[in-house]
Amino acid sequence: MKNFEGRNLTMLTDLYELTMAQSYFNLGRSEKVVFDVFYRSNPFGNGYVVACGIEDVIDLIEDLHFTDEDTEYLASLGLFSNDFLRYLGTFKFTGNISAVSDGTVVFPMEPIIKVEADICQAQIIETMVLNIVNHQSLIATKAARIMQSIGEDEGMEFGLRRAQGPDAGLYGAKAAYISGFGSTSNVLAGETFGIPLKGTHAHSYIMSFPSEIDAFRAYANEYPQSAILLVDTYDTLGSGVPNAIKVFNELKERGLLPNSGVYGIRLDSGDLAWLSKEARKMLDEAGFNDAIISASSDLDENLIESLKNQGAKITVWGVGTNLITAKDCPALGGVYKLAAVEKDGKSIPKIKLSENPAKVTNPGNKKIIRFIDKETGLIRADLICLNDEEYDCSQDLTLFDQVETWKRKTLVGGTYYSIELIKPVVYNGYRRFKKASLSDSRENCKKNMSVLSEESKRIINPHKVHVDLSKNLWDLKQELIKEVRKEKNGN
Amino acid sequence: MKNFEGRNLTMLTDLYELTMAQSYFNLGRSEKVVFDVFYRSNPFGNGYVVACGIEDVIDLIEDLHFTDEDTEYLASLGLFSNDFLRYLGTFKFTGNISAVSDGTVVFPMEPIIKVEADICQAQIIETMVLNIVNHQSLIATKAARIMQSIGEDEGMEFGLRRAQGPDAGLYGAKAAYISGFGSTSNVLAGETFGIPLKGTHAHSYIMSFPSEIDAFRAYANEYPQSAILLVDTYDTLGSGVPNAIKVFNELKERGLLPNSGVYGIRLDSGDLAWLSKEARKMLDEAGFNDAIISASSDLDENLIESLKNQGAKITVWGVGTNLITAKDCPALGGVYKLAAVEKDGKSIPKIKLSENPAKVTNPGNKKIIRFIDKETGLIRADLICLNDEEYDCSQDLTLFDQVETWKRKTLVGGTYYSIELIKPVVYNGYRRFKKASLSDSRENCKKNMSVLSEESKRIINPHKVHVDLSKNLWDLKQELIKEVRKEKNGN
Repeated sequence: MKNFEGRNLTMLTDLYELTMAQSYFNLGRSEKVVFDVFYRSNPFGNGYVVACGIEDVIDLIEDLHFTDEDTEYLASLGLFSNDFLRYLGTFKFTGNISAVSDGTVVFPMEPIIKVEADICQAQIIETMVLNIVNHQSLIATKAARIMQSIGEDEGMEFGLRRAQGPDAGLYGAKAAYISGFGSTSNVLAGETFGIPLKGTHAHSYIMSFPSEIDAFRAYANEYPQSAILLVDTYDTLGSGVPNAIKVFNELKERGLLPNSGVYGIRLDSGDLAWLSKEARKMLDEAGFNDAIISASSDLDENLIESLKNQGAKITVWGVGTNLITAKDCPALGGVYKLAAVEKDGKSIPKIKLSENPAKVTNPGNKKIIRFIDKETGLIRADLICLNDEEYDCSQDLTLFDQVETWKRKTLVGGTYYSIELIKPVVYNGYRRFKKASLSDSRENCKKNMSVLSEESKRIINPHKVHVDLSKNLWDLKQELIKEVRKEKNGN
Repeated sequence: MKNFEGRNLTMLTDLYELTMAQSYFNLGRSEKVVFDVFYRSNPFGNGYVVACGIEDVIDLIEDLHFTDEDTEYLASLGLFSNDFLRYLGTFKFTGNISAVSDGTVVFPMEPIIKVEADICQAQIIETMVLNIVNHQSLIATKAARIMQSIGEDEGMEFGLRRAQGPDAGLYGAKAAYISGFGSTSNVLAGETFGIPLKGTHAHSYIMSFPSEIDAFRAYANEYPQSAILLVDTYDTLGSGVPNAIKVFNELKERGLLPNSGVYGIRLDSGDLAWLSKEARKMLDEAGFNDAIISASSDLDENLIESLKNQGAKITVWGVGTNLITAKDCPALGGVYKLAAVEKDGKSIPKIKLSENPAKVTNPGNKKIIRFIDKETGLIRADLICLNDEEYDCSQDLTLFDQVETWKRKTLVGGTYYSIELIKPVVYNGYRRFKKASLSDSRENCKKNMSVLSEESKRIINPHKVHVDLSKNLWDLKQELIKEVRKEKNGN
């Protein structure tokens, strides 16, 4: 199925992108600019963000166009000239985009997408890019946290009914899968992306039969190969588990008991730690040691960790609302900031000041270099530097803190290697490389998580990965700060 | 533009809806059932929920169908029989739906949507209905809270870049408009729903010019009739406001100064209370008393109330992330519960028990009656009762608490009138009435808010509106609880 069901999302933009674009257009301005997408702080108190949504952005970028219906609507606003509307009618994004791959682990202030285009084009795509990447990166990050707690067990995403609309359910399921969730309940996500589907039955199914055991029998007869029975409709240990055991015995007698791992019970309420331990005992005593116990009920990474610490006998974890809405921090604050403007063939770096030092942007056309320790295979540090800087990994490299510049750290030459995180993905408006498949992105995420230390993956108070500016970039930044304070208010 | 851009959202369902449906299908079960959509507690500590998304659900219901591609995909899962896939291939929802109108104020436990259909059909639509209505009602409720603080000032929605995907931005903008927001930045929402659009320029626009005043001049020349200038790029009071005043003077000299209310400044950072007061003084002293001051910067209902209490001189409030993601409670827990099953032509009420008394469902085919005080025009109480109950408003009516049944309240005959909140909206699978326009729904919301007391609309610790069960319903519930505890576990 086509991405975003073939919808044209060109109009998914803020009005001010178009009012600014018209101003540039009427001033005859079509200089090349560089915009960076980055975020300022990690959500959830996490140590990183899993970047996601970039492949979708590329798909949308390639297809951007205003239909006649769109330009007629815009004309009706009385804000736009016929010339500008004609320009929109022939609009095509023809710039270049560099970006990290979906599933890449990134840190605050790193430019994860870099748009190089003429100023009108760069402006028009801003909102769409942020909408898609903020949402999917947020959910991918939440899912990675939850998978940290789930560990080697299985994570099932099933938040569709509480997601913020159809797209939030669909693209949230995709993001969760990239970060390691094993399956989803969302049939459209299965069809669209090929994500494995899981699901059993609801309380209403049990209630619609004369009795619980009738319901269990009906379900097990229909799906003997995947009989996961929901045991908490009436009384989990008093009737649910005993009735499930009765039905498993019946399947066994008829030679229909499936192989390990695909039959068992689901708990959806109550004290999951205690209930799962009691249920495990009952199942084991009845000879069903390979019956699985899956659980759901407002789970998140903290509750799962707590349940595991309590020795809960759960191996399949169904996570809904807390994952699909990123409940404890439902927005990622990714921004789109001007970094450079071309003038007379030269790239002029730009900076945005703020009373808050953390909000001062990094100027210029930049890239991210990741330094990996040869021995441990773990990240030593990331360096944000200017695009033309090169580093020789056989040499010692001294990095310093962006704020407390006396804090220094030296990587000894020969002990580390480097990778560049941002790659050209769109050239003159067209996708440069074959689209990464969902399993490529999932694999990329797994690989990225493996270069993070356990301390940096911790869900509470993670160890912060060093992200420093290169000396050249830092100097440029200080210089521009001085310059702007002097000149820019134009008084 | 067509709702959901003409997307077919039939597959926007959880797998278990289809596995349950196949089980019913293969057992030859096609009895009529009643499902209720309701929620258990108000989000945000609010006193009510604004129901929203129902018109969209009706649109989607009318068009539900599985395409060949859908059934081929489902066949590939190896779970479904050819007979059942053929059934899905010809699937059409042919049941009845009753619901409140978009914009209606509702309370916990009230059945806001009632689906009466054969059991397969009722099951298949569950997830889609919940997804749409949970999301839109959540945002409409958050927007209503924020509008409580905004009062007679103007609210602008501009959260698209932080929304959880395109739909969350688009349908969130719609929900906000229904609850009283005056405009949105979202161009697609303008085009799709006709919501008024607002927007000016970004910091990057200012930064792309040699100086701030050049940027202001360029913008004011382009849009003299709507020159709202963003003054916080470099130094709000030091350069932004003085430069804005300079440009307003230039417009004035050229006779281009627009009429009141459409020119002014926007503050997007810093101490909004102080900055707005200082800016107001500067504007007034320069003779621009009618210049407006709009503000944004992580606003929500609490911050807006606080700013107003501090005497901030802001009259246009731009609200982004906190509204579009309902940040402090990003999910509404609406559920879809079986209330009755038809057997031998008789409707058998159903109940779901739970260890948690608040989670025990209300059985039977029900309706909601709202009693309004004739004198004040305010809600006295809502009554959840069985569908065939009638009340005569000329008679005294005694209501009692659902849990503490000794708590009673009598409405004196003749002092109140009643309205029924749920109306038939889908009959045999087709929309019964013309679709409510967005302005109908907005008007309905306004009317609904006007029957709530100020105390119930308070954003902190609101007064709880009485929602009681009728005596008949309460008796039925007690009876079923006893019965189920005895019989249903089937041991």
